[in-house]
Amino acid sequence: MPELRKDPVAGRWVILSPERAARPYDFASVALPRAAQACPFCPGSEAETPPEIFASRPDGSAPDTPGWTLRVVPNRFPALAREGELERSAEGLYDRMNGVGAHEVIIESPDHARGLARLAPAEVAAVLSACRRRMAELHADPRIRYVLIFKNHGAPAGASLEHPHAQLIATPIVPLQVQEELDGALRYFEIEERCVFCDIAAQELEPAGGRRLVLARDGYVALAPYASRFPYETWILPVAHASAFERGDAAQDAALAGVLSETLRRLERVLPRPAYNFVLHTAPCRSPELEHYHWHMEILPRLAEFAGFEWGSGFYINPTPPEEAAAALRCAEP
Amino acid sequence: MPELRKDPVAGRWVILSPERAARPYDFASVALPRAAQACPFCPGSEAETPPEIFASRPDGSAPDTPGWTLRVVPNRFPALAREGELERSAEGLYDRMNGVGAHEVIIESPDHARGLARLAPAEVAAVLSACRRRMAELHADPRIRYVLIFKNHGAPAGASLEHPHAQLIATPIVPLQVQEELDGALRYFEIEERCVFCDIAAQELEPAGGRRLVLARDGYVALAPYASRFPYETWILPVAHASAFERGDAAQDAALAGVLSETLRRLERVLPRPAYNFVLHTAPCRSPELEHYHWHMEILPRLAEFAGFEWGSGFYINPTPPEEAAAALRCAEP
Repeated sequence: MPELRKDPVAGRWVILSPERAARPYDFASVALPRAAQACPFCPGSEAETPPEIFASRPDGSAPDTPGWTLRVVPNRFPALAREGELERSAEGLYDRMNGVGAHEVIIESPDHARGLARLAPAEVAAVLSACRRRMAELHADPRIRYVLIFKNHGAPAGASLEHPHAQLIATPIVPLQVQEELDGALRYFEIEERCVFCDIAAQELEPAGGRRLVLARDGYVALAPYASRFPYETWILPVAHASAFERGDAAQDAALAGVLSETLRRLERVLPRPAYNFVLHTAPCRSPELEHYHWHMEILPRLAEFAGFEWGSGFYINPTPPEEAAAALRCAEP
Repeated sequence: MPELRKDPVAGRWVILSPERAARPYDFASVALPRAAQACPFCPGSEAETPPEIFASRPDGSAPDTPGWTLRVVPNRFPALAREGELERSAEGLYDRMNGVGAHEVIIESPDHARGLARLAPAEVAAVLSACRRRMAELHADPRIRYVLIFKNHGAPAGASLEHPHAQLIATPIVPLQVQEELDGALRYFEIEERCVFCDIAAQELEPAGGRRLVLARDGYVALAPYASRFPYETWILPVAHASAFERGDAAQDAALAGVLSETLRRLERVLPRPAYNFVLHTAPCRSPELEHYHWHMEILPRLAEFAGFEWGSGFYINPTPPEEAAAALRCAEP
């Protein structure tokens, strides 16, 4: 069973997951290309994944057979285990807890070759809707404190399989990055009595501003953040305040799908075959609506290696000013 | 001029350094191998680096000519600029400051092909001594708050040049990772009235413990940390309490050189052609001796890609238990 271990100095939690070692092609030094015909996510290979948790089957086909347009399955090499209790224990000065949670794969479409940026808007909306549905279901599990949706696109971004898919990991503690955002946003709210994300959207949408704006449409804004960690980093957020992505509806899925796909297509125009991650940051499970926090997506293109200075300092070095990245993305043919 | 920008939500600082964009071979998508004969760090190519800051020249040769055994030069593509004032300014809700600091390269030996693990102990000690010397000199600059020594070994670890070298970046603020260690170590000290690093070393050195011990010799211990972020992550620390690496002496250089080189040789036995980073964490510039902090080196092998979940959560997923890594390193022929 995986376990969570806490660093006694910095306080960060690490997931120790020996099961993940079974994925040898994920290790850079022994990377092997995988032939498309062997893809476990293609129609006809349903038996190669664990039984499906959810699928869209417009033709009424049986579970774990072809006919689906979107499929959610448990990850075969899960970082955290679905079963078990949240036991905590100590080893001398060290703390650990059982690695309880969930790790699922959202197979975005049956088409091996068509990435998220190339799906029809209704298909992207179906992916977002499936994410909301899985989050709502996992939030009912009291052991789970957070559900993180993310995507690894391209080998430099950590993808081990080419077939377009997003993932979800549910964790028994709120992740550090999210907690830091919650804490920072609360400090801002205590001083300003306004949401910092609302203020960011407003400043970037000002007629005199706009130097970091990528696009604004249907109540959503895509922008290059002022302190971008990565070249062409782009955030997408709703202009109207909302702390929980999963409390949205079909109208949210449709509008966000349009802005997300156009942003990804613009990125593909500017960067040749971009590898990227995206992550969805929303309030923790079972939070009431929060005045100080605002859900958003962060798209993180992976152009440069993270090296010793970054690991050792926590600083990011970014050679591309966000104003320049936003201008290039605005000018690109979507 | 580079600038530091602060993220208004999470509070983290990013270094925006357009000069770094001139290093195209550092970008994964257009990586080009560089022929050894074109190496700017080899003897005879001294004119290809900025003028040297320091060199060991046992033959009394002139600066910026061959004859050196170790050479420290400014990085040609610095992340931070040596000149300028530490001005702070705002843009709406955003904060920035001038990117003042230093970025230097420590060319470890004239030999292009011999990595740090293959240098003689006296040569490794000379590298450590040069690091101490540069740190002491930079600490005299009141604009500088921290000097981070690090190394990128191998392309997956972010190295853009093969010739063995370490680097140093001096920053006008204490890096987040170091501040988090300082804060965590202080919290521990306030409760226990002991240094957490001293307690870690003691627990790992116990006869009943030792499951994460790699080696212990000459007052230094190499261990696989309990909450290892990376497979085969190894920390080296002095057993006796000391908060500042740069206040050490030639005896420290010699003992640490022996343990560092043996640890790297053991890693090379266990992992085929390992790519790794190492970083040296020490107290901030001009700190008095701190009871709660303890300098140490962190060696971070780079076997797996950091992907969306890690970026979005701050969790690390490590498939290799440190107990297993330490056992393999202990058994390896050094």
